[in-house]
Amino acid sequence: MSAIPSAALKPQAATLPRTFMLRQYTRVRDYSLELTATLSPEDQCVQSMPDASPSKWHLAHTTWFFETMLLRPFSPHYQVFNDRYHYLFNSYYESLGSRHPRPRRGLLTRPTVDEVIDYRRHVDAAMQQLIEHAGPDAWFKIRPLLLLGLNHEQQHQELLLTDILHLFSCNPLLPAYRSGSDKDSLSPASMATEHGLTWLPQPGGTVGIGCIDTAGEEDFAFDNETPRHHVLLSPYRLADRLVTCGEFAEFVFDGGYQHAGLWLSDGWAAVESWGWTAPAYWMAPDEPEAGIEGWQTFGLDGVRPLDPSAPVTNISFYEAAAYAEWAQARLPTEFEWEAAARDPRMAQVTGHAWQWTRSSYDPYPGFRSAPGAVGEYNGKFMVGQLVLRGSSFATPPGHTRVTYRNFFQPSARWQFSGLRLARDNI
Amino acid sequence: MSAIPSAALKPQAATLPRTFMLRQYTRVRDYSLELTATLSPEDQCVQSMPDASPSKWHLAHTTWFFETMLLRPFSPHYQVFNDRYHYLFNSYYESLGSRHPRPRRGLLTRPTVDEVIDYRRHVDAAMQQLIEHAGPDAWFKIRPLLLLGLNHEQQHQELLLTDILHLFSCNPLLPAYRSGSDKDSLSPASMATEHGLTWLPQPGGTVGIGCIDTAGEEDFAFDNETPRHHVLLSPYRLADRLVTCGEFAEFVFDGGYQHAGLWLSDGWAAVESWGWTAPAYWMAPDEPEAGIEGWQTFGLDGVRPLDPSAPVTNISFYEAAAYAEWAQARLPTEFEWEAAARDPRMAQVTGHAWQWTRSSYDPYPGFRSAPGAVGEYNGKFMVGQLVLRGSSFATPPGHTRVTYRNFFQPSARWQFSGLRLARDNI
Amino acid sequence: MSAIPSAALKPQAATLPRTFMLRQYTRVRDYSLELTATLSPEDQCVQSMPDASPSKWHLAHTTWFFETMLLRPFSPHYQVFNDRYHYLFNSYYESLGSRHPRPRRGLLTRPTVDEVIDYRRHVDAAMQQLIEHAGPDAWFKIRPLLLLGLNHEQQHQELLLTDILHLFSCNPLLPAYRSGSDKDSLSPASMATEHGLTWLPQPGGTVGIGCIDTAGEEDFAFDNETPRHHVLLSPYRLADRLVTCGEFAEFVFDGGYQHAGLWLSDGWAAVESWGWTAPAYWMAPDEPEAGIEGWQTFGLDGVRPLDPSAPVTNISFYEAAAYAEWAQARLPTEFEWEAAARDPRMAQVTGHAWQWTRSSYDPYPGFRSAPGAVGEYNGKFMVGQLVLRGSSFATPPGHTRVTYRNFFQPSARWQFSGLRLARDNI
Amino acid sequence: MSAIPSAALKPQAATLPRTFMLRQYTRVRDYSLELTATLSPEDQCVQSMPDASPSKWHLAHTTWFFETMLLRPFSPHYQVFNDRYHYLFNSYYESLGSRHPRPRRGLLTRPTVDEVIDYRRHVDAAMQQLIEHAGPDAWFKIRPLLLLGLNHEQQHQELLLTDILHLFSCNPLLPAYRSGSDKDSLSPASMATEHGLTWLPQPGGTVGIGCIDTAGEEDFAFDNETPRHHVLLSPYRLADRLVTCGEFAEFVFDGGYQHAGLWLSDGWAAVESWGWTAPAYWMAPDEPEAGIEGWQTFGLDGVRPLDPSAPVTNISFYEAAAYAEWAQARLPTEFEWEAAARDPRMAQVTGHAWQWTRSSYDPYPGFRSAPGAVGEYNGKFMVGQLVLRGSSFATPPGHTRVTYRNFFQPSARWQFSGLRLARDNI
Repeated sequence: MSAIPSAALKPQAATLPRTFMLRQYTRVRDYSLELTATLSPEDQCVQSMPDASPSKWHLAHTTWFFETMLLRPFSPHYQVFNDRYHYLFNSYYESLGSRHPRPRRGLLTRPTVDEVIDYRRHVDAAMQQLIEHAGPDAWFKIRPLLLLGLNHEQQHQELLLTDILHLFSCNPLLPAYRSGSDKDSLSPASMATEHGLTWLPQPGGTVGIGCIDTAGEEDFAFDNETPRHHVLLSPYRLADRLVTCGEFAEFVFDGGYQHAGLWLSDGWAAVESWGWTAPAYWMAPDEPEAGIEGWQTFGLDGVRPLDPSAPVTNISFYEAAAYAEWAQARLPTEFEWEAAARDPRMAQVTGHAWQWTRSSYDPYPGFRSAPGAVGEYNGKFMVGQLVLRGSSFATPPGHTRVTYRNFFQPSARWQFSGLRLARDNI
Repeated sequence: MSAIPSAALKPQAATLPRTFMLRQYTRVRDYSLELTATLSPEDQCVQSMPDASPSKWHLAHTTWFFETMLLRPFSPHYQVFNDRYHYLFNSYYESLGSRHPRPRRGLLTRPTVDEVIDYRRHVDAAMQQLIEHAGPDAWFKIRPLLLLGLNHEQQHQELLLTDILHLFSCNPLLPAYRSGSDKDSLSPASMATEHGLTWLPQPGGTVGIGCIDTAGEEDFAFDNETPRHHVLLSPYRLADRLVTCGEFAEFVFDGGYQHAGLWLSDGWAAVESWGWTAPAYWMAPDEPEAGIEGWQTFGLDGVRPLDPSAPVTNISFYEAAAYAEWAQARLPTEFEWEAAARDPRMAQVTGHAWQWTRSSYDPYPGFRSAPGAVGEYNGKFMVGQLVLRGSSFATPPGHTRVTYRNFFQPSARWQFSGLRLARDNI
Repeated sequence: MSAIPSAALKPQAATLPRTFMLRQYTRVRDYSLELTATLSPEDQCVQSMPDASPSKWHLAHTTWFFETMLLRPFSPHYQVFNDRYHYLFNSYYESLGSRHPRPRRGLLTRPTVDEVIDYRRHVDAAMQQLIEHAGPDAWFKIRPLLLLGLNHEQQHQELLLTDILHLFSCNPLLPAYRSGSDKDSLSPASMATEHGLTWLPQPGGTVGIGCIDTAGEEDFAFDNETPRHHVLLSPYRLADRLVTCGEFAEFVFDGGYQHAGLWLSDGWAAVESWGWTAPAYWMAPDEPEAGIEGWQTFGLDGVRPLDPSAPVTNISFYEAAAYAEWAQARLPTEFEWEAAARDPRMAQVTGHAWQWTRSSYDPYPGFRSAPGAVGEYNGKFMVGQLVLRGSSFATPPGHTRVTYRNFFQPSARWQFSGLRLARDNI
Repeated sequence: MSAIPSAALKPQAATLPRTFMLRQYTRVRDYSLELTATLSPEDQCVQSMPDASPSKWHLAHTTWFFETMLLRPFSPHYQVFNDRYHYLFNSYYESLGSRHPRPRRGLLTRPTVDEVIDYRRHVDAAMQQLIEHAGPDAWFKIRPLLLLGLNHEQQHQELLLTDILHLFSCNPLLPAYRSGSDKDSLSPASMATEHGLTWLPQPGGTVGIGCIDTAGEEDFAFDNETPRHHVLLSPYRLADRLVTCGEFAEFVFDGGYQHAGLWLSDGWAAVESWGWTAPAYWMAPDEPEAGIEGWQTFGLDGVRPLDPSAPVTNISFYEAAAYAEWAQARLPTEFEWEAAARDPRMAQVTGHAWQWTRSSYDPYPGFRSAPGAVGEYNGKFMVGQLVLRGSSFATPPGHTRVTYRNFFQPSARWQFSGLRLARDNI
C-alpha cells in the first residue's frame, strides 16, 4: 500500500512471551530474503516507476524501520551500521528529517545488494539482543512497535512482489519471477468449480466497524482501523465471490473501454490518457477474432493463457467502478464489505485479490494520529485514495483481518486488486 | 463547482404557476448579464487556467443548456441559432457527442460577446414561448428541467465571479471587478462584532441527511442530495462561526506553511510544488515586520487591506485541514455540518464562505444516476473530490440549502472557500 | 521572427530629411492599425500559444519600443503614458528590468484595445514633436534608432498576421481574417504559368556576403547582416522557383510523413510527437481517395481549396529538409542563396514565402553585439535556430533585402515558410 | 557523443594485414571490459537520465553493432546469440526496424551483466573467425566496417565513463569510480606550470578543412569530417591553452551566473530553469566566504578539492559562451580551431577536454549520407547541436584526430567539455 498505517497499540500485546516474538521476528525477516532469492542484483536495484520501489530498497527500508524506531531509542549500545542510510532509506517521515527523493530510489546502485544484506544481519543481531534482554519497562514500549515493524515488513513483502512484476512487465523479454512448479502460490487461484454468482442478502442495520483500541479478538491492528464505531446500513446484497477474468473479458469484448457513459469522469480521462483497453498485464492476441482463448496474462509465473475462472486483478478503481456499472451493480462500501465478511457463504474474502470498495479513505470518527514519527503514516494519507478490503494471493500468510483497510489512488493498477459486486436490496 | 448535479425531480414542482416560472427565468437570466455588464469584451473571452472558463463561455453554455435540454426536445418549431454552438458550448456531456476541449475555451474569440448576447436573446424568446404555450403533458416534463436549468445557471453565476477574479489576479494591473460603493455585496462580510469563537455542543445520534426524492420543505434539490437517509453520529462540538482572516494570519505567522507535520501528505506536496505561503490572493507587505496591518487581499473590489474579522476564503482543503490541525481541532464531516445547520446559534451558515468538510464526495446510499445526458452530471464526478457546505457571499440569492453538496478537488483555491472548526466531544 | 536584430547604424542615414522620416513613421504606424481594423477586441487579446502574441500586445510593444528607446532618452518633457506599461510590454530586454512573462501575454485583458490605441496616439504625437524639433546632435543619434523602430514594427506586422492566423486555426469556426475581395495580397500567389522547375547553375567562388557597416546600397540593415565578409562556394545549382503545394502533396501522398529515412532525427521525433501528416493548415478530405482536389488549406482568407501551383508555406525546417531529401536535392546554404539572389532568372526571391536554408543561425565572422539594450536582440538568439531568406506575401512592402536573415527554431510551422531546392553541381 | 558518424571508407585500409586488425579488435574489445571491471552489476544496469545509457547497454550495443553490420551479412553460418537482442540493443537505426525506447534502457535488468558478457564472447569468437577466414572480396567490404565498429566502440567507451559519472553523482554516497592510485589517467591534468594565457596569432586565409574521402594522412575518419573543402578565414588569435578551473571560478565569483547580459537567450533560460550556479559536479563550500579553497569537484576519482590549474570541464556550450563574453573574448569556430590545431605552440589540443566551438553542427559542402543503416548516423543529427573539437582525458588512446567533429546539444553538461578562447585580430 502507499502508506503503512501505524499500530493500534494494545497493552495486552505486552503479555506475549518474548520467545514467541523472537520467532515471529525471525520468520518475517527470513521471508523477505526468501522472496528475493531468485532475483539478480540488477533486478533488485531498478525502479520502474515512481510509485514502485526497488527490491533492495524494500529490504533496506524495512531494516531502517527497526533501526530507527527500536534500536536507536531503546538500545543504548547499538552501533549504527552506516550514518548515511538514515537519509537513504527513510520513506516519507518528515519529522525524521530530509530524505532521498522517492522517484530517485532506483539510482542507488550503492549500497549493493550484498551490503544491504549485511545491513539486515547487523540489525537482526541487535534486534535479537534487544528482544531478549530489554528491561520490562522498555519491553512494554518495545512490544507494540515490534509488532508494528513486523506488520510493516509484511506490507512491503507484498509491495516487493507487485513492484518486481511491474519491472518485469517493462522488459520485452518478460522474465518470470518464478518458474511453474510453485506457481499456485503466486497467482490468483481459479475457483474449484466455476459456479455462477450468488447474491447474498445482508440485513444492514446498526453494525460495528473497526477495531477497539484496547482489546479485541485480533492481536494487532493498524490505527486507521480504529476507533471502533457503529454505522447504519440499509439492507443490501453482496456477491458471494469475486468477478472473474472471464466475466471481465465480456466487459472488454462488449466495448466497455470505449463507452464513456460507464465511467467516472476521471476514469474516462485515464482511459483516454493512457490508452487502457484491458486490465494491466493482459495481452491481446495478434488476431482480434481469436476470442478469449487467444488472450494471455503476464504474472509472477511469466506469460500464461488467461484463466477465465480466476479472479480479475490489476485493475484500477475506475475500471472496477465501470465494470460494476456495466453489470448493473455497484461496488460495496467498505462498511458493507466488513459487515458481511464473516458470512460463511462469502468466498474469496481474503487471499485472492484486494477488493476495491466505493469508499473514499476518510478517517473513522474520532480518529487522531499518534504523536511523533509513528503517527506520520496515518491521517496524512487520508485524502484522494480509495479503500480496498480483503487481501490477495501475494499477501503474506497471517497478514489479513476483516477490519484491514488497504488504500490506493483510484488510478493504481499495479496491485493485485479486483472487485466484488454489490446491489441495493430492491 | 466543477460539476453540476442534476435535479431531484419533484412532482409537486409541476403545480407552480407558469407565470411564476417565467418570472424566475427572466430574473435568473438577467442576473447573468448584470454580472458581466462592467466587463470588457476582452475580459469575457480569456481563460486564465484550465479549471476556469471565460465569462462569455459561461453566458453561452448556460444558454446551450436550455437549448439542448428543453428547446430541442420540446419545441418542435425551434430554429437552432447556430449548429456549431452545440460543439462549442457543451461542457462535458459525453452522451451528446464530441465537444470543444475544456482547456481551449479561451481560444474562442468568435463568436464575440455581442453574438453570444444575440444567442441568449434568441433562446430566451423561444423559452418564453415554450413556458407559456407548452401543453400540460410536456409542461410536466419541462418544469423540473427548467428548474434544473435555472439552478445550473446560478451555479455558473458564482463560477463566473470566481473565474473573473482569477483572471484579474493574473494581470499585474490588478483591476477591480467593481468599484467600492457596492463592495459589501461582493466580499466576505466582517462579523458585526469580533466575538470569540464559541463551541456549540451537538448531540449526534441518528440524524436524517439529504432530501427526499418526492417531497420536502425545499422546492428543488440536486440529485446528489438524495436519497434521504440516516447516519449515526457521536456527540461533537461545532464552532459557531467561520475561521477569520485574523485567525488564519496567526497560522501563517506561526510558520504553518513551513511545518510539514500539520499537513496531509498531498497537501504538503502542494505547498512545496506551488510555493504556497498564504491563502490565494493574499499579498504580503514589502517589509516582513509590518505585521498583519501590512497585508492586503485582492478581491472583486480590487486590492484592500486584509480584514482580520472577515472569514478567510480562497483556501484549499489542504490548507483548511492544516489549519484545523494547528488549532487542535478538525473539520466537521458533511453529516455533522448538516445535522447542526439549523441550530439557531450557528452563524455564517450560508452567504459568507463555502466550508470545507472532512468528507470525500461519495454517493449517498442508494444513489443512482438518472438515465441520459441529465444523469451525466452526478455520479461521474464522485471520486477524488471533497464536499463543501453552506454558500458564499457570491452565491446568487436563493441558491442555498442546508442539504446542498458543493464539491471541488482538494487543491482548489480559486473558490470562495473557507472553514468552520469541529471537535470531538470529550 | 523570434528576435529582432538591431540596426547597423549608418551615418549617411542622418542626411535623410526629417519630413521624409516623419512620412515614413506615419505610414508604418498607420499600417499596423490598418491590419487590426477588422479584428474584434477578443481577437486582439488572446494568445493561442507561447510562441505567438496577441495583436494588442504587438500594437503596444512596438509603441513601447519608441517610448523606451527614443522618447525616454531624448524627449525631456515627455510624459510617460502609464508607468506599468514598461513592465507589461517589454518583450525580452533583460537590461531593462523584469517584465511580464511571455506565455502570459494573453492574460492581459486590461489595458483594453481602446486604451492601447490611446497609448499609440500619445506616443505618436510625442514622436512627431521629437522628429520635427530635436536638435541636430540628438537627431544624429535619433535617426538610426528611428529607422530601427520602424523596421522593428514592420517585423511585428508580419508576426501579427501569422499569430492571428494561428489563433483562428484553433477556433472550430475557422473564421477568415479577410474576405475574398482582397485575398490576393494575403495569400501566396500562384505562378502565372505553372512552369516546370529549372535548375540554375551558379559558379560559386569567392562571394561577398552581408552588409557593410558604414555604407552600402541599402538604406538600412540589421546588425546580424554584418560584417560584410567573403566566403568560398563550390559551384552549385539552384531552383528558379519555390516548391509548390502540388509538389509537396506528392511527397505527402508518397508516404513522406511515414518514412523515417527521409528525416533528420529531431524532425522524425517531431513528426511522431505531434502527429504531423501534412503542412500546418492543410485539411485532408473526408474521403482519403479524393486526391489533391479534396484538400483544403486554411489561410488569412479562410478555408479554400488547396492551390497546387502556389508555393507551399507553413512548413518547419524539418519538413523542408525531408522534402528535399525525398526530391533527391538539398536546401541551399544561406550563402548560396544570397550569392544567387540577384540572378535575374530566379523567381519568387521575395514576396512569396520565406525560404528555409541549410544554415544554422550563427554569427558572421567579427560580429559583436552593440552595448546596451539595443544590443540585446542580436547575438543572444544565435543558437539553435535556422536561417530563412527572402520574404513572404505577408512581409510589409519595402521590408525586404537580399542580405536579410530571418531565423526560427527548426520546428516552427506558423510562419509563412517554404523552400527552394538546391543541388550540388555534378 | 549523441550520435556516431559513420566511417569515410578508405580503400587503402584494405591493405592492412588481418593480423593487425585482429589485434586491434581484441585490444579495443578488451578495453571495454576493463573499464567496467570495478563496477557492480547494479552500477551497470541503471540509467540515470534519458541522455545516458547503462554500462551494460553500452557493452551489449557495441556487440550488437558487430553482429548486425558484419556477422549477419558476411558470416553465413553465424548463429545469432539471442533473437530478441536485435530489438533490445539497436540504438537508433530506423531502417533496422523498431527498437527498445531509449529512455527505458535502464529497465532491462535482464539480460544480466553475465549474460551480456557471454554475448560478447560469442560475437568475439565469430568475429575472429570472420577476420581470419573471410574471402578477399568480402574482406574488402568488411575491413572498413570493422574499422567503423572499433571506432564506434571507442566512442562508447568514453560515453560509458561520462554516463557512470553522472549516475554516481546522483547517489548521495558519491562513490568513486576508481581509487586514487590511478587517478591521473581519469581526471583533467593540471598544466605542469600554471602559466598565463598566451594569444597565438593565426593568419587565416584559405585553409583546407576535413578529410579527403579516398586517401589521407589518417587511417580512418567519420564521414561527417568529409568532404575536404576550403574555407576563408580572417586573421584571428587563439589561446594557447584551455580555460582553467581557477579562471572559471573567477567568473563564478564575479556573478557570472547572475548576469543575464553575458548569456545567450536560451542559455539564460537554462540557468534559470535548472538553477545552475557553477559547472556540473562542482560542490560549493558550506561557508560561502571560504573562497576557491573550499570548493570541491566530483569526478571519476570521487570527491577532490577543486584544482585551479586543471582545465574546466562539464560545462555546457551556454556556459562556455557566457564565460567567453565575460572574458571579452569569444569561442573559435570549428574552422579556426582546425586551422590552428597543428600549431606547435598550441597546448592541450587533445587528451584534456573537448572544446566547444562557436560552430553549429552543419553538414560540410557536398556531404551526402551513405545509403543503408550505416548512413543513418550522420546527416540525421545535423541540426540543433554544436561542434566540439579536440578530445578529453577519457577519450581512448588513439581515438583522436584534428579533423574530428564531436557534437552535442548546447545544454549538455555531462561530457568532459571545456573551452579554449579566441579573439578577433584587431
